[in-house]
Amino acid sequence: MNRSLFSARQLVIASTLFSSSLLAAELNHNITAADVKAAQDAWGKALIQISSDHRSGGIEKATATARQVLDQAYGYNLGPVLFKPTLASGDTTFRTTYAGALAYFVGGNPQFPDKGFALKGWTKYEYKNAGVQINGDLALTMGHVMLTDQDGKVTKVDKTWGFRKGDDGKVRIVLHHSSLPYSAN
Amino acid sequence: MNRSLFSARQLVIASTLFSSSLLAAELNHNITAADVKAAQDAWGKALIQISSDHRSGGIEKATATARQVLDQAYGYNLGPVLFKPTLASGDTTFRTTYAGALAYFVGGNPQFPDKGFALKGWTKYEYKNAGVQINGDLALTMGHVMLTDQDGKVTKVDKTWGFRKGDDGKVRIVLHHSSLPYSAN
Amino acid sequence: MNRSLFSARQLVIASTLFSSSLLAAELNHNITAADVKAAQDAWGKALIQISSDHRSGGIEKATATARQVLDQAYGYNLGPVLFKPTLASGDTTFRTTYAGALAYFVGGNPQFPDKGFALKGWTKYEYKNAGVQINGDLALTMGHVMLTDQDGKVTKVDKTWGFRKGDDGKVRIVLHHSSLPYSAN
Amino acid sequence: MNRSLFSARQLVIASTLFSSSLLAAELNHNITAADVKAAQDAWGKALIQISSDHRSGGIEKATATARQVLDQAYGYNLGPVLFKPTLASGDTTFRTTYAGALAYFVGGNPQFPDKGFALKGWTKYEYKNAGVQINGDLALTMGHVMLTDQDGKVTKVDKTWGFRKGDDGKVRIVLHHSSLPYSAN
Repeated sequence: MNRSLFSARQLVIASTLFSSSLLAAELNHNITAADVKAAQDAWGKALIQISSDHRSGGIEKATATARQVLDQAYGYNLGPVLFKPTLASGDTTFRTTYAGALAYFVGGNPQFPDKGFALKGWTKYEYKNAGVQINGDLALTMGHVMLTDQDGKVTKVDKTWGFRKGDDGKVRIVLHHSSLPYSAN
Repeated sequence: MNRSLFSARQLVIASTLFSSSLLAAELNHNITAADVKAAQDAWGKALIQISSDHRSGGIEKATATARQVLDQAYGYNLGPVLFKPTLASGDTTFRTTYAGALAYFVGGNPQFPDKGFALKGWTKYEYKNAGVQINGDLALTMGHVMLTDQDGKVTKVDKTWGFRKGDDGKVRIVLHHSSLPYSAN
Repeated sequence: MNRSLFSARQLVIASTLFSSSLLAAELNHNITAADVKAAQDAWGKALIQISSDHRSGGIEKATATARQVLDQAYGYNLGPVLFKPTLASGDTTFRTTYAGALAYFVGGNPQFPDKGFALKGWTKYEYKNAGVQINGDLALTMGHVMLTDQDGKVTKVDKTWGFRKGDDGKVRIVLHHSSLPYSAN
Repeated sequence: MNRSLFSARQLVIASTLFSSSLLAAELNHNITAADVKAAQDAWGKALIQISSDHRSGGIEKATATARQVLDQAYGYNLGPVLFKPTLASGDTTFRTTYAGALAYFVGGNPQFPDKGFALKGWTKYEYKNAGVQINGDLALTMGHVMLTDQDGKVTKVDKTWGFRKGDDGKVRIVLHHSSLPYSAN
């Protein structure tokens, strides 16, 4: 048995909340608004890190970092992720597999047409949620994300994320739909 | 459409948490530790109220209050409640129906052998949680409940509750297992 | 108390599954794959119905039907819906309110620039899921939706839906991100 | 990353259900009625196995089996379990820790007064659910359990269980309240 997970859980001596119930052990599986903010902050930081590692260490370093990001921040460990990246289209629109997601971020996979979204030299990340829903261990967000490249050009995308808190206490992206703003022209 | 529910929901302008996302509307279906404490406090208060109403207004007043408690604090509105009352036994051990629960609290139903647990003149209520689990809209608690009657006699029971937060934002008991402490004699 | 909900719930005499437990009453809050399919089928049917009602009864009939669809198939009754319609952009990209959604489908609201997406004479609807996730009362889908107008022209969109089964047993859309396929040109 | 979990998940090619969506990958975290039945069957089988191992291999073999049962069938891996065993009382009524549960089943721990409930030579197990609730990855059951010892004596208990399906796809007991039937005498 992996009892080491125990310490990673939200085991709280809820002495302040339960005045009549000192020392009650609490186990809480729910995702919180603070978890959502942390995950949204982390996503942008990770994207910029891959870009930075690409500059400093080339494609190998960028790919290693991208793998770390996918391992830790995306839910491919439990099954298919619902991922529609901004610039994906055609037969490779949906990246439900780890391989498809990695290809999107750093390219280099002949099965996917990507040049590597994370290699575009991103330097700044901002987001603005239009709405957030929290439902058990799952949180859904929708809003705008603004990415700035090394030339100062800002790309704004419409972004939907689903974040799920796993039994290991880690929050991972299980849904990610990103699209360029609609233009009538 | 019942849009009046809207105001009852936890619609929060999450301006403090989402520094990058001013004005995000948040909808949170999860039950919280504070919800659990409020529900546990309310249960004892309701039991004492039925006893008090019995003294002041007889069985009719007590029954009316018990109905209110069951309507508001138990989940019979959505289906069967898993209810094993302290003193129930035999063929009527489990009170999965509203009628069975009402009979347990105030008696008067020939289909059940109850004299009315809530008519015993309870004056004081305390609880001590041994543990709490929170899982989405459902919270589980286990611990001791101490009830004092009008003669000062204290009855201690082993108590398990399941509380569920409904779409109306109200927290209701969906599971309730109460038993007298085991005695080797 | 609204006990009429009782009959609408999935109360099942689980006599076949529980061989040792005849007559166990079962209450199941979970959404199923069959619920998802029914909701996805219903969405397209509703869109075509609004178009059809527009042809036969003008904007008034179309608007009345659109209101019914929003009341029954979208989750605005409980709070903000995360809705990014295909052709919405700028300051009105996200339609988290009922008014914003209605405007998108049938227009006629000076606060929104929409001409009415459901008035485009849609005649056929198909979808192809790339993936489905089921998590408690919430289901997430991602895939392609193909809509055919009265001239036979097909519009293909990238579509993400979140469906939530409420306490009333009804499945409603709580998340809807729709976008035109990315084009490199 | 533990990608080996992938194959253990309920990854289903939902080709039959989604006629319009061939090849959609489905990930379903929900617990089912069939999961509940399997877990209830397994609990009794495990108890009888410990008794059998005690007869054939003494306390060491029984303890080894009890550890396996607790590791696989109880949720101590993620945090405190809400466990009130049938014959526990006083300061050790609630066994929220692994050590407390192990002591209850096989004794031998000076911190707990138990002689070992699973060492009583159980030979037969039956259960009869009064009700079942399913809520996401959590299922709650309440009903009677009948245990027969080697002398043919039947012990009937009032039993409440909470079963949770983890990210590893395994169903574990996270709540267990067992009590002897109330007797007016």
